[in-house]
Amino acid sequence: MSLPSSDLTPDNCVFLMIDHQVGLMQFLTSIDPLQLKNNILGHARTAKAFDIPVLMGTSWPTGPNGPTMPELKAIFPEVDVIDRPFVNFWKDEASRKAVEATGRKKLVISGLATEVCAAFPAISALRDGYETYVVIDACADFNPLITDVTMQRLSAAGVIVTTWVAVLAELASNTQVNGKHIGQLLSDHMGQYYAAMNNFLGVASTAEEVKAGVGLTGTPPIPAVLK
Amino acid sequence: MSLPSSDLTPDNCVFLMIDHQVGLMQFLTSIDPLQLKNNILGHARTAKAFDIPVLMGTSWPTGPNGPTMPELKAIFPEVDVIDRPFVNFWKDEASRKAVEATGRKKLVISGLATEVCAAFPAISALRDGYETYVVIDACADFNPLITDVTMQRLSAAGVIVTTWVAVLAELASNTQVNGKHIGQLLSDHMGQYYAAMNNFLGVASTAEEVKAGVGLTGTPPIPAVLK
Amino acid sequence: MSLPSSDLTPDNCVFLMIDHQVGLMQFLTSIDPLQLKNNILGHARTAKAFDIPVLMGTSWPTGPNGPTMPELKAIFPEVDVIDRPFVNFWKDEASRKAVEATGRKKLVISGLATEVCAAFPAISALRDGYETYVVIDACADFNPLITDVTMQRLSAAGVIVTTWVAVLAELASNTQVNGKHIGQLLSDHMGQYYAAMNNFLGVASTAEEVKAGVGLTGTPPIPAVLK
Amino acid sequence: MSLPSSDLTPDNCVFLMIDHQVGLMQFLTSIDPLQLKNNILGHARTAKAFDIPVLMGTSWPTGPNGPTMPELKAIFPEVDVIDRPFVNFWKDEASRKAVEATGRKKLVISGLATEVCAAFPAISALRDGYETYVVIDACADFNPLITDVTMQRLSAAGVIVTTWVAVLAELASNTQVNGKHIGQLLSDHMGQYYAAMNNFLGVASTAEEVKAGVGLTGTPPIPAVLK
Amino acid sequence: MSLPSSDLTPDNCVFLMIDHQVGLMQFLTSIDPLQLKNNILGHARTAKAFDIPVLMGTSWPTGPNGPTMPELKAIFPEVDVIDRPFVNFWKDEASRKAVEATGRKKLVISGLATEVCAAFPAISALRDGYETYVVIDACADFNPLITDVTMQRLSAAGVIVTTWVAVLAELASNTQVNGKHIGQLLSDHMGQYYAAMNNFLGVASTAEEVKAGVGLTGTPPIPAVLK
Amino acid sequence: MSLPSSDLTPDNCVFLMIDHQVGLMQFLTSIDPLQLKNNILGHARTAKAFDIPVLMGTSWPTGPNGPTMPELKAIFPEVDVIDRPFVNFWKDEASRKAVEATGRKKLVISGLATEVCAAFPAISALRDGYETYVVIDACADFNPLITDVTMQRLSAAGVIVTTWVAVLAELASNTQVNGKHIGQLLSDHMGQYYAAMNNFLGVASTAEEVKAGVGLTGTPPIPAVLK
Amino acid sequence: MSLPSSDLTPDNCVFLMIDHQVGLMQFLTSIDPLQLKNNILGHARTAKAFDIPVLMGTSWPTGPNGPTMPELKAIFPEVDVIDRPFVNFWKDEASRKAVEATGRKKLVISGLATEVCAAFPAISALRDGYETYVVIDACADFNPLITDVTMQRLSAAGVIVTTWVAVLAELASNTQVNGKHIGQLLSDHMGQYYAAMNNFLGVASTAEEVKAGVGLTGTPPIPAVLK
Amino acid sequence: MSLPSSDLTPDNCVFLMIDHQVGLMQFLTSIDPLQLKNNILGHARTAKAFDIPVLMGTSWPTGPNGPTMPELKAIFPEVDVIDRPFVNFWKDEASRKAVEATGRKKLVISGLATEVCAAFPAISALRDGYETYVVIDACADFNPLITDVTMQRLSAAGVIVTTWVAVLAELASNTQVNGKHIGQLLSDHMGQYYAAMNNFLGVASTAEEVKAGVGLTGTPPIPAVLK
Repeated sequence: MSLPSSDLTPDNCVFLMIDHQVGLMQFLTSIDPLQLKNNILGHARTAKAFDIPVLMGTSWPTGPNGPTMPELKAIFPEVDVIDRPFVNFWKDEASRKAVEATGRKKLVISGLATEVCAAFPAISALRDGYETYVVIDACADFNPLITDVTMQRLSAAGVIVTTWVAVLAELASNTQVNGKHIGQLLSDHMGQYYAAMNNFLGVASTAEEVKAGVGLTGTPPIPAVLK
Repeated sequence: MSLPSSDLTPDNCVFLMIDHQVGLMQFLTSIDPLQLKNNILGHARTAKAFDIPVLMGTSWPTGPNGPTMPELKAIFPEVDVIDRPFVNFWKDEASRKAVEATGRKKLVISGLATEVCAAFPAISALRDGYETYVVIDACADFNPLITDVTMQRLSAAGVIVTTWVAVLAELASNTQVNGKHIGQLLSDHMGQYYAAMNNFLGVASTAEEVKAGVGLTGTPPIPAVLK
Repeated sequence: MSLPSSDLTPDNCVFLMIDHQVGLMQFLTSIDPLQLKNNILGHARTAKAFDIPVLMGTSWPTGPNGPTMPELKAIFPEVDVIDRPFVNFWKDEASRKAVEATGRKKLVISGLATEVCAAFPAISALRDGYETYVVIDACADFNPLITDVTMQRLSAAGVIVTTWVAVLAELASNTQVNGKHIGQLLSDHMGQYYAAMNNFLGVASTAEEVKAGVGLTGTPPIPAVLK
Repeated sequence: MSLPSSDLTPDNCVFLMIDHQVGLMQFLTSIDPLQLKNNILGHARTAKAFDIPVLMGTSWPTGPNGPTMPELKAIFPEVDVIDRPFVNFWKDEASRKAVEATGRKKLVISGLATEVCAAFPAISALRDGYETYVVIDACADFNPLITDVTMQRLSAAGVIVTTWVAVLAELASNTQVNGKHIGQLLSDHMGQYYAAMNNFLGVASTAEEVKAGVGLTGTPPIPAVLK
Repeated sequence: MSLPSSDLTPDNCVFLMIDHQVGLMQFLTSIDPLQLKNNILGHARTAKAFDIPVLMGTSWPTGPNGPTMPELKAIFPEVDVIDRPFVNFWKDEASRKAVEATGRKKLVISGLATEVCAAFPAISALRDGYETYVVIDACADFNPLITDVTMQRLSAAGVIVTTWVAVLAELASNTQVNGKHIGQLLSDHMGQYYAAMNNFLGVASTAEEVKAGVGLTGTPPIPAVLK
Repeated sequence: MSLPSSDLTPDNCVFLMIDHQVGLMQFLTSIDPLQLKNNILGHARTAKAFDIPVLMGTSWPTGPNGPTMPELKAIFPEVDVIDRPFVNFWKDEASRKAVEATGRKKLVISGLATEVCAAFPAISALRDGYETYVVIDACADFNPLITDVTMQRLSAAGVIVTTWVAVLAELASNTQVNGKHIGQLLSDHMGQYYAAMNNFLGVASTAEEVKAGVGLTGTPPIPAVLK
Repeated sequence: MSLPSSDLTPDNCVFLMIDHQVGLMQFLTSIDPLQLKNNILGHARTAKAFDIPVLMGTSWPTGPNGPTMPELKAIFPEVDVIDRPFVNFWKDEASRKAVEATGRKKLVISGLATEVCAAFPAISALRDGYETYVVIDACADFNPLITDVTMQRLSAAGVIVTTWVAVLAELASNTQVNGKHIGQLLSDHMGQYYAAMNNFLGVASTAEEVKAGVGLTGTPPIPAVLK
Repeated sequence: MSLPSSDLTPDNCVFLMIDHQVGLMQFLTSIDPLQLKNNILGHARTAKAFDIPVLMGTSWPTGPNGPTMPELKAIFPEVDVIDRPFVNFWKDEASRKAVEATGRKKLVISGLATEVCAAFPAISALRDGYETYVVIDACADFNPLITDVTMQRLSAAGVIVTTWVAVLAELASNTQVNGKHIGQLLSDHMGQYYAAMNNFLGVASTAEEVKAGVGLTGTPPIPAVLK
C-alpha cells in the first residue's frame, strides 16, 4: 500500500520535470495536446507559486525529441536543464545529485513519456527510500492504453499517482492564505474554471440589477420554482 | 434538401408522441435512461407550455412494451392514447384522422424506437405533403449505430431532424414573452442548466458581500488578472 | 489491502458530504450532470432513510464554487453546513470535531471534486485510524482521467472506493425490512430502475388479461419458443 | 433526396445477401461479432418469415474470405449461392439476371464489407433504376470510420440506409397479423428484447400473487410514489 | 495482494450464480446485453462441462427483478434456486450452508449487479477464510463506471477478478483432455471464435483444391510475398 | 445540395458571433472547454487578421448565461454587442439590420448553443437568400448527440458546416501573403501546432550541429534505415 | 445528390495526393498514425498497381509541415512534387494545369489536413465540372470532430466521400484479373487481412493432417456441433 | 506490492512469447490489429537487439489458432517453437525446463490471449519464485474489458504490468550506447515516431535555408511571437 507518511508541503518536496520537450509533445497524444500544455504549465507555475525547487532534464534535445517547451523554460530561467545520456533520470549522477542537494525526500515527478521518463525514476527513487508521486496529467504517452498500464504498474509498486490540481490543492492547504494561487492557476489553465470565474465576476457585478429586477427587463423572469 | 418553409410556432404544429412506453424505455438504451426520461418529459411540457395539441399512441401496451410512461400520461390527462395494430402510426386510420383533425401541417414526432415508431410516420406523412420533424433526443434505439443510420435515412428523405431544446427555443421565439418557459424547462430537465440557474441565483444573492469584499474574508481574493 | 473490518450499518458510519456546491456541479463534468445530481440526492436520501448522521461542508460558497445544492440542503434542514478555510476537510478543526462528536469510525465520503475534496480527508482520516470509503459516483472531476487517477490513488492508499447504490444496499441488508428504501430510491434516482418498476406494475395490473389472452387480441401472440 | 416511392412489402422486394462468409466475419470488426452474427441471422429469418426471395453471393470462398456462414446457408437450403469473379455483384451477369428474374424493383442489400460488397451494387442498381436499401447493421467493415464514410456516401447517392429491425417492422406492418414474427425474431436476436420478453412472461405468470400481495411477503413493498 | 494459493480445478471450487434474473438483465446495461447473455450461459455450461457444483440465488423474483433467466435455469434443472431476503448472499443462512455443504474453499462468483450481488458475498466470504473470484464479464451494472469502481474495490480487498473464458481455460488445463470443451463453448458463446472455427473447417475442407490451385481458378492468386 | 457559389474572401463575408457568453461556456460541454475557448478566440482573431466585419450578440447577459467572454470582447473593443429579446438573431431587427448594413451576402456564423443560437439564424438567413456557414467547432451544445443532430439538420437545409481552421485557410488563400496569420493563429490556438512550430524552430537552430554530428555526441545516432 | 456518372476505372481518373508531409502526419492525429501511414501507402500503391497518374503537392515543406513522406515519394520517383503558395491546390496554376494535362475528369483526392488540403480542391474542381472523390481514411485532421464536419460538408456539396479500400476494389473490378492486387495490398496494409491471409495459408498447408485427424492428436477434436 | 528487486537488463531476463499465432491475431481485437502486429514485432526485435533469450510456444497450431506469425518466427529462425497440450505454458514440462535452462529469474511474458496465455504462466511462475512481467500491449483479448480485468488481476497478484516500449527503454538504459536501438525500433513500429524521425531529418537538412530565410520565400514567415 502507498499511504503517504505526510502531506505535501512547500517545504518537503521537489518537482522533477523530465523531458517536457516539444518534439515529444507533438507525438505523444494520449492526452489532448492543448490540455497537456496547460497541465504542464499549471504544474510548473504551482512550483513557482510555492517556491518549490524544480529540476529539469532533457533527452536528445537536438534530435527528434526537440528542445524543452519554451514557455516552461521561461518560467524557470534560473534552472539549469540537465541533459543526460541515461534513459532513467535516477541513473544519471548529475541529476540524482541535484535531487540530493535539495535535501528533500518527497519527489513530485512528471515527464514525457509517462511509461519511461516519469515511471523509471519514480520506481528507482522509491527503491532508494524516497516517497515518489507521479503527476499523471502532466505526462503523456503514445496512446491511452500505455498510460493505463503505467498507472497500474506505478500504483502496485508503491508510487503515488496524482494530478496537477491535486498537488496544487495539497500545497495550498489554506484558502485564506493561498486561495489566490488556486484561483489564478485554475482560471488560467483549466477551461471550465476560467469560464466559471468570469461568470461569477459578471454575475456579481450585475447582481443589484438582477435583484431589483432591473436587469431582468427584456430578459426572462426567474422561474418560480427556483426562487 | 429539407429547408422548412417556415419556423415552428405554437399555431402551426402538432406533437406526435408515439409509444413512449416504460417497457421500451427499459430496453432501448442508446441514450442514458435518465436523460431519455428527462428529454421526453421536457418535450411534453413544451407542448403544455405553448398549448400545442399532442397525440399519443401505444403499441402492445399489455405486452413487453408496457404502458405509457405514467408521468408523461399525467401531463396530458385529457389526451386519449390511441393503441393501434399498425406498426406505422400513419397507417392507422384513427391516428391519422386525429392528426388531420388538428388541421396542422407540421408534425413534430418523437417515439420509441426511433428507427421504427418515429421514422416510419415521419417518412409516410412527408410523402403525403406534411412537413415532418423528428426530435432525435426524445427517442431511443437498441444501440447508437441504429440512431446514426436512422438520422441519415430521415435527413436524406427530407425529414428535419432536431432536438427537444431546439424545438422549445423555436417555439419560445421571444424571451421577453416566453423566457420563463425556457428557464423553467431547462432548469428542470437539463442537468447543467439546473446547476447554472441555482448558481446564478446564489451568486446574485451574495453579490453585495462579494463586491464589498465582505463575502471574501476567509475566501480567496479575486485573481488580479481577472479583475 | 483494504478489506473492511465489518460491513457498513446504520449504527457504525457517518456520511461526509463535502462541497456539493452548484458552482462546482456546473463545471465538473466527468459525469453527466443529470446523473451526478441524482447520485448525490440518492446518496443523501440514503442517509435520511437509515438515520445516519450527515456532516456537510463548503468551500468559498460566495465565490465561483457557489452555494450548496438547494435540494441537497433541503433534505437536511437541521444540519449546519460548515464553511472552512482549509482545502482538506480533515484539517479543519470544526469539521473534524464534528466527526469525532459522532463517535463513529467509518466515514463514507463524497465531495466535489473527487481528487481534492473527497480524496484528501479520506486519506488523512485513514492515517488517523478511521476506515474511510469514497462514493465515487456521488463525486465529479474536471475530466474522467482525473477520476481514474484518483480511484487508483485512493485504492492504493487503503481507502475503499464504492458507489452510492452499493452503500444503499449494504445498509439496507435485509429486503424484508428495508426493501422499500431500495425500491423507492432506485426508482427515483436511477433512470432504468424507474422504468423497470413502472413496467413491472403495468404488467402486473394487466396480467389477468394477458394470461386470458384477452389483452393479446390485437397484439402479437406470445412466440412459441418463449412459452 | 431519397424518399422511397412506397413502403417495403413482402411482394415488392428481394434481399441480396452478399458475401456473408466466415473469413470476412472474422476480420471485419467494426461491429461486435456476436451482434453481427445475430443481425445477419435475424435479417435472413425476416426474409423467411415473409417469403421474400433471397439471392446469395460469394467472393473467393476457397480463399481467406472462407465459405458462407453455415447457419445462414442452412436457412436457405434451396438458394444457389452464386460465386462470382466480379467485385461488384451488379456487374456479374448471373447475379444480375437472378435479380431481374424476380421482377422486383426494390433491392434490400447487405454484405461484407459494407464499403464494397454492399455499397457497390446498391449504387450501380440505383443507376439502373432500382430503389436500393442497404441494411447497415447486417454489414461490417475493417473499422467504424469506414462504415461512417460509406453511410454518408450511400445516402448522398440516393441509396436508403436502414437497419434489419426497421426492415422487419416495415414488412410486418400490422402486428395483429405479423406480430409473432416481430416477437420471435427480436427475442431470438436482440439481447435486450430477449430479456424483456422473458421478464414480461415471468411477471404475468406471478401477477395474481403480486396483486394479492402474496408474492410480496418477503419482498419490498411497492413504493408509495409509484402506486 | 491476491495471489491465489493454487489454480482452480474441477475439484476445488463451487460456482455461485447469484440473481441472474431477466428483469435485472434488462436494465443493467454496462455490457452489451447479447454479450452478457452469452457470457452467463458460457460460464454456466463451463460448470456443467467440468461437473462443478453450482448454487443459484434470487432476489425479489416476483418483483421487477423478474425470474431467473430461463435458459440458465434449464442448464441446471436439479439445482434449487434459493430466494433470500438478504441482499448479501453470504448473510443468508440457507445460502451459506449450501456453500459449506460442498466442502469447497474456492468460490467463483458472478451476479447481477456486480457492485452488490457479486461483490458483497465475495468480500464477506473472503473475510471468512474463503478464496473468492468474481467473474466480471458474467456480471453487469447500471453503468460502466460502477463496474470500474467495483473491480478496484474487489481487487484491493483481496478478491480475484477474472473472466469466464479465463475460468474455462484454467479448469480445462490440458487441451488433449478438455480441448473439446474450450472449442465448443467458445464457438457457441464468443462471436469471433464461432467465425474462426467455421472458417478453419471451411478452409481445411477445400485445402486440396487450394493447394492444387484448382480452387483458385476464378479467384485471386496467392500474393507472391506471402508464399 | 450546398455547393457554395464562390470561396470565402475577406471582402465577401461577415462573421456573426452569437452569445459566446461565459455562463453558457461553463455548461455547454460537448467540446472540451479549453478547446472551445481556443477555437472561439482563434476564429475571432481570424476576423481581425483579415479585417472582416464582426457582429456580436447576447441573450440574457445579466442572467445565468453571463456576459460575453472578456477576451473575446477585448479583441473587438469597437463592436457594439447587441442584446436581443429574440432567441433567433435573425428575427431581431437591430441585429438583422446590422448584417444588411455590411452589404455582404455570406454569413459565417458561430454561437452557443449550436442547436439554437447558431442554427436558427443560419436557416433563417438562408431562406432570405444569404449563403450561410456554421463554424461547428466554435460552437458547443449540452451534449455531443445534439451537435450531431444539428450538423445533419443544417447540412440538409443547405447550410454549409465548417470549422474555424478551414475558414482561416480559405480566407488566407495564398501563404506567401497570409501565411503569417496561419502560422500565428494555429500556433496560438491549436495544441499540436504550437508544439510543431516550436519543435521546427528548435531543430532548425541546432541543425548545423545535427548535421556535423556534434549535437549527436551523447545522443543516439540516426538509424541507418532513415538516412 | 452525388450519384457518380460511372465507376472509377484505371482509365478515367487521376489521384491527387496533396501535402502528405511528415510534419503534418506527426500532429494530425484524428486517425491512429500507424493506420494513417498504411492507408496512405496502400492508396499510393493502388495507383501504381493500376497505372493511374498521380499528382503530388506540398505546402511549406521547409517549415513545420516537413517534407513529403519518404516512402510515399519513393513509390513515385518520376513524379515532380509541386510546391505551391496557394492553400488550395486547385488555385495553383501549375497544379491545375497538371490535372488538365491528364485529360481525366474524375479526381480521387487525399490530403493532410482533410478539412483544407483535401476539401478545398474537391469543392473547387466540382464547381469546374469535375467529378471529385475524397479518400477520407488517407487523410487526417487535428481531431475527429473536424473530420466529421468535413465529411458532412463535402457530401452536401456533391463530393463523393470514400475510402482507400473501396477505391482499390472499384478499380480492381474483376478478381480473376486483379485479385492479386487486392490480396497483396490488403495483406500489406490492413492489420486484420494480413493475419487472415497468413492464417489461410497456414491452414491450407496443414489441411491434409487436419482432415486425417493427424494434426489433431494432441489438440482438441472438432466440436460435434460444428461438423 | 510489486516493486521489482532490480531493473531489467539484457543479462537478467528471458522473453516468453506465447501463442502469437495468426489465427488468434485475427479474432482477438481488443487492440487495433495493425498496432498489435507492430507491438509484437517491436518487442521481438528488442530481444534480438539486446541478445536476450526468447522462448516461443504454440497451442493448437493446426487448428483455428493457426501457425505462429511468419514475421515473428523469421526473427528467431534458431528458436524451436514448443507446441504444448497444456493451456498454461508453465505446466508444460518442456516449456518450463527451457526457462530453467536459461538460469534467469525475470520472465518478460507476452501472449495471445492476455487473459489466458500471458496471465497463467505469469501467475504460476511468480508462485514459484520468479519475478514476472506481462507486456500488455504485445498481447490482445476478445474485448477491452477482458484486458482491464486481467491487468487488475495480474497487478493484484504481484505481476508487473508493462509495455513493449518501456521494456525496450529499460533494457537500453544508456542512449549513448543503445540509442540506435530505440531510434530504429520506435521509427519502425510506432506510427508517430516514424513521422517524427523523418520530420526531424527533413528539417535538419533544410535548416540552413530556413535560417537564411531562403527556404522561406514562398512560404509563411515565422510568427514573431515564436522567434
